[in-house]
Amino acid sequence: MIYKNYPMVSNVVFGRGSFDQLEEILASKRKGRNAPFIFYVDDVFKGNHWLTSRITLSYKDKIIYVPTKEEPRTEQIDQLVEDVILEFSELPSGIIGIGGGIVMDVAKAVSLMLTNKGESKDYQGWDLIKHPAIYHVGIPTISGTGAEVSRTTILTGPVRKLGINSDYTPFDQVILDPELTKDVPRDQWFYTGMDCFVHCVESLNGTYLNAFSESYGEKAFELCKEIFLENSLSDEEAQDKLMMASWHGGMSIAYSQVGVAHAMSYGLGYLLGIKHGIGNCIVFDHLEDYYPEGVTIFKQMKAKHNIELPQGICADLDDDQLNTMIDVALSLEPLWENAIGKNWKTVMTRQKLLELYKKM
Amino acid sequence: MIYKNYPMVSNVVFGRGSFDQLEEILASKRKGRNAPFIFYVDDVFKGNHWLTSRITLSYKDKIIYVPTKEEPRTEQIDQLVEDVILEFSELPSGIIGIGGGIVMDVAKAVSLMLTNKGESKDYQGWDLIKHPAIYHVGIPTISGTGAEVSRTTILTGPVRKLGINSDYTPFDQVILDPELTKDVPRDQWFYTGMDCFVHCVESLNGTYLNAFSESYGEKAFELCKEIFLENSLSDEEAQDKLMMASWHGGMSIAYSQVGVAHAMSYGLGYLLGIKHGIGNCIVFDHLEDYYPEGVTIFKQMKAKHNIELPQGICADLDDDQLNTMIDVALSLEPLWENAIGKNWKTVMTRQKLLELYKKM
Repeated sequence: MIYKNYPMVSNVVFGRGSFDQLEEILASKRKGRNAPFIFYVDDVFKGNHWLTSRITLSYKDKIIYVPTKEEPRTEQIDQLVEDVILEFSELPSGIIGIGGGIVMDVAKAVSLMLTNKGESKDYQGWDLIKHPAIYHVGIPTISGTGAEVSRTTILTGPVRKLGINSDYTPFDQVILDPELTKDVPRDQWFYTGMDCFVHCVESLNGTYLNAFSESYGEKAFELCKEIFLENSLSDEEAQDKLMMASWHGGMSIAYSQVGVAHAMSYGLGYLLGIKHGIGNCIVFDHLEDYYPEGVTIFKQMKAKHNIELPQGICADLDDDQLNTMIDVALSLEPLWENAIGKNWKTVMTRQKLLELYKKM
Repeated sequence: MIYKNYPMVSNVVFGRGSFDQLEEILASKRKGRNAPFIFYVDDVFKGNHWLTSRITLSYKDKIIYVPTKEEPRTEQIDQLVEDVILEFSELPSGIIGIGGGIVMDVAKAVSLMLTNKGESKDYQGWDLIKHPAIYHVGIPTISGTGAEVSRTTILTGPVRKLGINSDYTPFDQVILDPELTKDVPRDQWFYTGMDCFVHCVESLNGTYLNAFSESYGEKAFELCKEIFLENSLSDEEAQDKLMMASWHGGMSIAYSQVGVAHAMSYGLGYLLGIKHGIGNCIVFDHLEDYYPEGVTIFKQMKAKHNIELPQGICADLDDDQLNTMIDVALSLEPLWENAIGKNWKTVMTRQKLLELYKKM
């Protein structure tokens, strides 16, 4: 058996208000007047002086707001890379992502594609990246996906929704400032938090499980239960703990794999543009046959926070559309092998997937 | 408030048998025929074919066995560095430590001192290192200290027992192969495991605690209870989990601090050469006033595993010796501030320390 050699985030700062340390952290990384820092910022913060006034721009540094209605596409990444190359005479000193999973993935992907030739769609997969990325920093403003700690960057390309998985993908620096999550809308807070919860259930119930993933997964699972089911935490404590749950949940799947909910959610995302967090919730709600304990807890959390999930989203799809979703889901072989075992193809038939999708 | 920017281990492999991946990992790091890999190996493995036959030596690579009766001293590090410089025409391609906390610290210290001029005693402290270390790999063969994940390397110097704390200290690569711990003697297994348990108690009950350290510390604490108090685990599961407890316990104190037991244990180590694990146990056994819950659990663990700690080790010390221990312990100001708070000097008097030491 060959075990993964997992690349870790190089440096991490944790603490409320630690966002203010960004300027000092970047200072030693500047390569010159013509090598800017580029800040990709979730466009929800446009006009939010509390956050943007704390980003110091020098020389040719630039803030670029990233729309987050839709998840990142490969052509969007290629365009952002081209924009940087056309605008600046030198490669950037660094790429900084400030936002949720979408912005984290944009920052990771751009930093990789600035040093690797060609189109990003050609790097969707495992270990296709040849050259180290530009120095890149991740600053999450919502907790749950674990994108701040992972070695992938999920992109929707012309033929698949799949990450650029590489040893060069993880951030060189992460700043975990839970205060940045204080204004996340309630529904998004729930969906993204549930992304973490679902990670943990899939990791802990997977055939790839090992003591490394288990220890991280169990901790994140416990934190999620404390945050979403108990009434004992202050808002600040809950923000702090959810940021750590996201981190540990990310580390748990880093060393194992996700499962049925993620595979099917990728299908929904690819065809219908349904975002990852809510997509996981919509799918997971129907997976009691695969994750009975996890789904029971999930339904308790959903009830406690009065979350109404969309219903009937697949009701009007035609056969071609359903087949496309099934194709996308089934293409994620490691996820199915983790969830069900080596014989997964005999268990998870197209018919069974079709029935599941039709319930949603 | 300024938060620590913590440097992480760059790459980690986890799994039983993963030690066999060392050769492949090193292959891409070789700088040439005259730049050897130097393997510092705990001398308990001398003649242990099961382990040593799995270390592949090429060109000028060399195994150096490290005696582990005593903890590393600064002059020992300086001598090891001089030996390397005199023997080889080029700097090594890498330094690999295979052993317990002592060997981890030797590997870290040598890799730092090969690129930083002068004597290692001049670097005992915080952030005195100027240049990046040689590529260095840590492979623990006993679990508990967390040395595999920390940014320090504890050395006994002419005037103090104190680590070289720096951003360049953490390993570039760690291989966590729990199988390597299978032959650890029972008493050492307990003492070193308790080092982890004591870390967690000190971190979780310290004034420096934050959600980052808390999440790691709680997980390691739970794992220690499962391993040392319950009967539910197979030997292999217990080895796997203790290796993860060590890792998480190390991360917990990385971002907070240890406390009373560590400060006093450093005094015992400096004066009497008592090793860190057993020293922590001897001290912690008397700290019910500071860590009531932790000490109660510790005594249960001690009883369950029939551990008899040495008694009366300070009975014959004279005043000068006792004062030296008290000086060493009190010099570790961050540990006391973490344990007791900013007013610690009014609480932890020399008299109180004297009384505690005299009980041991």
